[in-house]
This record gives sequence, structure tokens and C-alpha cells, in this order.
Amino acid sequence: VNAVEVISKKRDGQTHSEEELQWIANGAAKGTIPDYQLSAWLMAAFLNPLNEQETAWLTRAMAESGERIDLSGLPKPWVDKHSTGGVGDKTTLVLLPMLAACGLTVVKMSGRGLGITGGTVDKLASIPGLRLDLSPNEMKAQAAAIGLALTGQSPNLAPADKALYALRDVTATVESVPLIVSSILSKKIAGGADTILLDVKCGSGAFMTDLDQARRLAQQLVRTGSLLGLGVRASISDMAQPLGAMVGNALEVREALFVLRGDDLSSPSKRFRELCLHYAGEALHVCGKAPNLQEGLKMSEESLSRGAALDKFKEWITAQGGVAIWEEDAQLPSAPIQHSIPGKSGYVAKVDAETIGHVVVEMGGGRKTKEAKIDPSVGIELCVCVGSKVQEGEPIAILHAKDQRQAKELEATVREAFEFSQDPVEVPPLVLESF
Amino acid sequence: VNAVEVISKKRDGQTHSEEELQWIANGAAKGTIPDYQLSAWLMAAFLNPLNEQETAWLTRAMAESGERIDLSGLPKPWVDKHSTGGVGDKTTLVLLPMLAACGLTVVKMSGRGLGITGGTVDKLASIPGLRLDLSPNEMKAQAAAIGLALTGQSPNLAPADKALYALRDVTATVESVPLIVSSILSKKIAGGADTILLDVKCGSGAFMTDLDQARRLAQQLVRTGSLLGLGVRASISDMAQPLGAMVGNALEVREALFVLRGDDLSSPSKRFRELCLHYAGEALHVCGKAPNLQEGLKMSEESLSRGAALDKFKEWITAQGGVAIWEEDAQLPSAPIQHSIPGKSGYVAKVDAETIGHVVVEMGGGRKTKEAKIDPSVGIELCVCVGSKVQEGEPIAILHAKDQRQAKELEATVREAFEFSQDPVEVPPLVLESF
Repeated sequence: VNAVEVISKKRDGQTHSEEELQWIANGAAKGTIPDYQLSAWLMAAFLNPLNEQETAWLTRAMAESGERIDLSGLPKPWVDKHSTGGVGDKTTLVLLPMLAACGLTVVKMSGRGLGITGGTVDKLASIPGLRLDLSPNEMKAQAAAIGLALTGQSPNLAPADKALYALRDVTATVESVPLIVSSILSKKIAGGADTILLDVKCGSGAFMTDLDQARRLAQQLVRTGSLLGLGVRASISDMAQPLGAMVGNALEVREALFVLRGDDLSSPSKRFRELCLHYAGEALHVCGKAPNLQEGLKMSEESLSRGAALDKFKEWITAQGGVAIWEEDAQLPSAPIQHSIPGKSGYVAKVDAETIGHVVVEMGGGRKTKEAKIDPSVGIELCVCVGSKVQEGEPIAILHAKDQRQAKELEATVREAFEFSQDPVEVPPLVLESF
Repeated sequence: VNAVEVISKKRDGQTHSEEELQWIANGAAKGTIPDYQLSAWLMAAFLNPLNEQETAWLTRAMAESGERIDLSGLPKPWVDKHSTGGVGDKTTLVLLPMLAACGLTVVKMSGRGLGITGGTVDKLASIPGLRLDLSPNEMKAQAAAIGLALTGQSPNLAPADKALYALRDVTATVESVPLIVSSILSKKIAGGADTILLDVKCGSGAFMTDLDQARRLAQQLVRTGSLLGLGVRASISDMAQPLGAMVGNALEVREALFVLRGDDLSSPSKRFRELCLHYAGEALHVCGKAPNLQEGLKMSEESLSRGAALDKFKEWITAQGGVAIWEEDAQLPSAPIQHSIPGKSGYVAKVDAETIGHVVVEMGGGRKTKEAKIDPSVGIELCVCVGSKVQEGEPIAILHAKDQRQAKELEATVREAFEFSQDPVEVPPLVLESF
């Protein structure tokens, strides 16, 4: 294979062979193709997008470019879930134990957060003692024992994706649907999954703010997954407002516990619980454990109401060395200051996810750069969501801040995230579309 | 300036500011922009081509990215000439002394050959003693003394072009008209020229085989040159058959001498002489030394017939340390074997430039790789050109080979370059279009 010929082909809008895409994935993984040639190819592929077959070939080649988690012998389906990222998105923490409680094998790699988008690994890292560096063998052994294991990203799984993503990030070639699809699915396949749930977030707090764009990504994820013989379901969910009540790492672990324990929930937390049920129902349906989505939703609801999901959560955290936060949740980091922000009388018309996300990053709860350290204790607790009725002076949000000065400095910005209406506001749909 | 933003702009087909193009040129010259970002930008600029104003800005920025030859104080115009390269193209060797003999200041940087396209520097290097590494100051001093100086490419002139060209070569982004234009003109401007003659070759022995493509390049060279305030003339000349009788380094120097001396010329050499006259006429007209092209052609013809161009050639070679090849041309390398190839009876319908070029490379007269050494003595002498009438057995070409084996091995391929017709064949035009 000649690099310049391969680049010319995509430059001229021609279709690659499977061999050529394997050559690119292996060259990226092993460093045998120079970065300047990969980035020229990436720009050509951005402007002349890969077709569905090419996307599937590239995805498989990237999945096969390094180590893989082999789950053979474990009960099927082997489920994984991916979210494109949003503000307050702690779905994984509740969804995974629900699915494992329903008898599915769940093995997941999660990433760290960057910018306003939180990362599941950062959230879990606020649980003292929890290990997030399981090896493929440890993952398999734990999944065999309790049906569930989660680890941070391993550089050995899908190294082609790691190399190509690092280049895309600095060459303005991130926002290409086929390249995003191959990046997402290759990691899931290398991680051992045969059934994949995809949560495509859409709104100001997400990577995609445009519904058409989100729809193209969701559809392409399902099509490429099907071409590769996977069971794939994708939904587009609302990220115009944050998901749930809590935004901030330890705070989000607390909210996950509220839902798993069956506590009385605030309206924002109820909305978060609804999304967990949706994806659990989809998973049970797509893998055939439930005959239809409605039955899937019923089984999911029962996994929560009967405490099976909470039990699975405890097994999971214990298996990975985490302390029993459900017994004494004071072991989770908590911020010294709780500063309430009163609202105006009326109906909540908007809670801007992007603004809330930025405030939490400012507080130290998220990363501005890849190397930055985060403060797991800080964050924002939202007391209301879009459609809530508010009395004058009633708290709409609580800043969990490291000191009074930080709380005072950011209060005005948090207020700006809210809009109020004198007329009742319809509750916007949580799941916009499913594929 | 942010690299990812600049790349995104061109990716999305937006127009760059002059500042952004200066930033790219300087970043390429100084190595402050990583290759992978430059190559992503190059692919974006390949697929969303620079407009005329952007091309002019990039050209100027590249010209200003390093050292420049400053000819101020020397008589205007300051003329340079560029050919896109062909087989047997030794025009520079005759044209430059003609122009200097007519009173123009001629300062030229020339390149080495690669593949079937010969390089002027390689041809001149067959003259024993000739220096081809003049510094900018030496160039200016010699031009002041005799009106003419030529050197090899200096890495200090237009270093942005050097960096970008090296990347284009390995990222399938060579064939972009605006990028070719900025590469050609930036070097000429850095070399001090204010008047530029451009010979765009078209045919099997040239970089461009398609007339439409050649026309776009020629027109864009003239438009961009005009936007930059230069006097520019471009013509498209035929490269379906080799130019002139000789193909091979020392052989081509000999043919240049035949023309300068006013020897009796073969039909292929007459065709070569015609091209020298054409460009000299164009130069004299565009700079105002001649009131029209016809007068320019007359002055050019006189520079040859009166011996002024030959005198200038002698001054030039002497000034750069070359031996007096015109007194004893045995000082030029010559191949030990002259092997005649007889033709068929009929009219020559085709002499394929590409095939002839490849044979000369095979003989060692050209480079397959950038590092390869060349044999200056070998080459092919064409006795006929398209339209010539040939008697059975009359020689059509002479192989100047290093040994009998080489001559025998390549004879059949040379024969294949020729096609014959029983009906008279019209002589194809030499200059196809002028702009």
C-alpha cells in the first residue's frame, strides 16, 4: 500500500478497500504512517466522508488494532453503553447495575471529562478506594463473578483510535460523523461488547447542539453497528438543561445513590431516573431479554423498586475496592459551603446546561486542560427544572463551593442560566428520538 | 492566531485574511506549526482552493519568509523564467544569454531534475568547473557586471515553499493550481524578479498532460503575478514530443551551443530554437523593450544571428568558473557508445516524450530518487520530429550509451516511442496558447 495513493483516493472522493482502511488503522496504531500523512487523510475523509461500508471497515480495523477484552464463556449479551457527553450525566452509575441486576453481562471502559462535559471515571474517582485501572483479565474475572466491571480508558485497547483522535483534535477534523462513529464503536468492540446503547446528547450542554446533526450521528451509529453484526440502539436525549439535580463529581454519585435507593426525588432527579429506565428498557428489548420495550421498561423499574440494582451497585463498588458509601455517605468528599440561590416567582423556562457546566468547571469540578486536577467535592445542585413552578425567594439552586468567595463570585452567572415565565411552561421531552 | 481555527476556516471553504496566510507561511518556514497541522491545512486548501487574492497573499508571504535577492540599483527589468519541466528542455541555456544580450538583467535560480523531467542545474553541472552555488551577493555582483547570473536552489530563499512543497509531495496535495502558483512565483519573487516568463509544458513528457489543466495554471500564474504587480507572461508549449534533438545533460548543453553558434540545425533543434525566440520575444515585449511581440521576436533573432547571445553565454560561463566548452567541446563529458536506430519509411506521427524521458533515466541520465547520482554523458539524440519524412533505414535516433549492452537493452523501447504514418503528418504547433 502506498500512502500517497491512499490519500489521493479519498481526496478524489473514491471508495477505500477494506485492506486500505486496515492499513490506515494499523499504521496509526503502530506509528508507521507519519502524522502528516494521517492528518492529510483525515482532512480528505472529513471533506469526502467515508460511506457506511468504509465506516464499518475502519471501525473493525481500529477495534482490532490492539488488545481486546474477550468475554467468551460469559453469559450473553455483553452490553456496553456510551454517551456523547453532557452536563450532569451520571446515567452509567445507575444504568449499569440495573442491567447487571437483570442478568446482562456489562463491561465498560469510561473516560475522563474535559471542558463542560463530565467523565464517569472522574465521578467514580470520588469514591475512596475505588480502583479504575482494571486489566482486561481483571475485567473479565469480575464480570464473570458479578456481571459488571468498569475501568478507565486503556491505551492498549483500540490504539488506532487513540492516535487518530489525538490528531483530529488538533487538525479540525473532529466533527465528522463517520469518524466519530468509528471512534465510538471501535472502543466498544475492543472492550468486548456485542450490544451497545448509545446516548446522543443534543443541546447547549452537549457536543452537538443541532438536532439534524445528532440524528445523523445516531442513525449512522446504528447502521454501522448493524453492518458489524452488533445489537445497537441509539436515542437522542435532551441536553438543553443539565441532566438531573446534581452537577459535580461526588454530588453526582450521591444522586445516583438516591435513585438506586428509591429515595423521594426532586423533579430534576426524577427526570434523570426516567433516562436510566429508558436505556435499561432499550437494552433489555434489543438483546431479547424483554419481548418489547414496554416489558423492558417494566423489568427495569422492578430492578430499582425491588432493590436488586442497589445490591448490584454495592457488589460492584466493593469488588473494585471502593468504600461502602451507602453506609456512611460522609465518606464522599463534600464542599464546605452550601450557598442557596433564590429564584423569581413564575415557571422555569430555561436552565442553560452550558452555563451550568462552565460554572462547575470554574469551581474546579471540571478540567479546562487535559492535565488539570479536579476538585471532586464542588458543584451545583439544581432544585428545579424546566416547567417547575417557583415561589419568589424559593431556592432554585445550591452552590456547593470551596469557600464563600467562590460562591459569591459565581452566583450571578448561575442566575443567568435560569429564565422564568409567568405562563406555565411545558416540560420538554427527555428522549427526542430513538433509532 | 489559532491553528485549529485557521484549518477549520479553509476546511469550511471560508476565505483567509492576509494575516492568516502570513502566519501559515512563517510557521512553515520556521517550523513553528507542526507538519500534521500544515498537511491538514494543505488538504483543506486542495479541496477548497484558495481564491486569487488568497493565492497572491500566500505567494507574497512565502516570498518574504526568508532571505531575498535585492537587485535595486541594477537596470530594470529584472527577468526570471520558469518552466514546469519537460523532456529535453534546455531553453534556459539559450534564452538567458539572449535576454541579457538585449540589455535585460537576468537572475535565475534553477532546480535539479527528478524523474523524466530534467533540471537546468544538472545540465549546467556537466560543464567542468562551473559554480552553481552563488550566494545572493555573488548573484547581484555578477548580474551587475554582465547582466546574468544563475545558481542552484538556495534553502534560504522562500523557505516556506521548501517546507510546504516537501509536505505536499508526501500528502497528495501537489496538483492544486493555487498552491503550484504560489510555489512557483514565491521563489521567483524571492529571487529578485519583477518580470517573469512562464513555460507551462503540456503533454506526455510533462507534469500536466491535459490542456484544460495547463490553461488554468497558465491563466492563474498571470493573474496572481498581476495582482502582485509583476510583469508576467505565460505560454503553454507542446511536450507530447521531447523539445529539440538532445535529451541528456551534456548533450543538451551541446545543442544549446549549436543554437547559440548559429550552426546548421536538424528539424528537432530548429523547433527548440523557435521556443527560445518565442520567450525572448515575449520578454522584450512585456517589459517594454520592444513595442510589440513582432519587434521583440526580431530583436531576439538578431541577438542570435549577430552572435551577441553567444558572447553573453561565454561571459556567463566564464564568470561562474566554467571551462571554455565552445573552444574545445571535447571537455564536455561524452558517452563511449553511439548507437544509431534506423526508422521505417514514412512520416513521423509520434515521438513519445514520456518514453524517451524514461529511457534516459534508465540510462542514468536522470534521477529515480532525490539522492541518486546522474551520468552527465548519456542520453538520446533525436534525428527527426513529428512531421519529418523518413526513408527506410535512415537513423531516427542515436543512443549515447555507457556501453553496448545498455544500448542494446534500450533500443526496443526507443523504437516504441516512435509511430509512423504513410500519409504526410502535419507539424503540431509548438506554442499552444499564450496569456
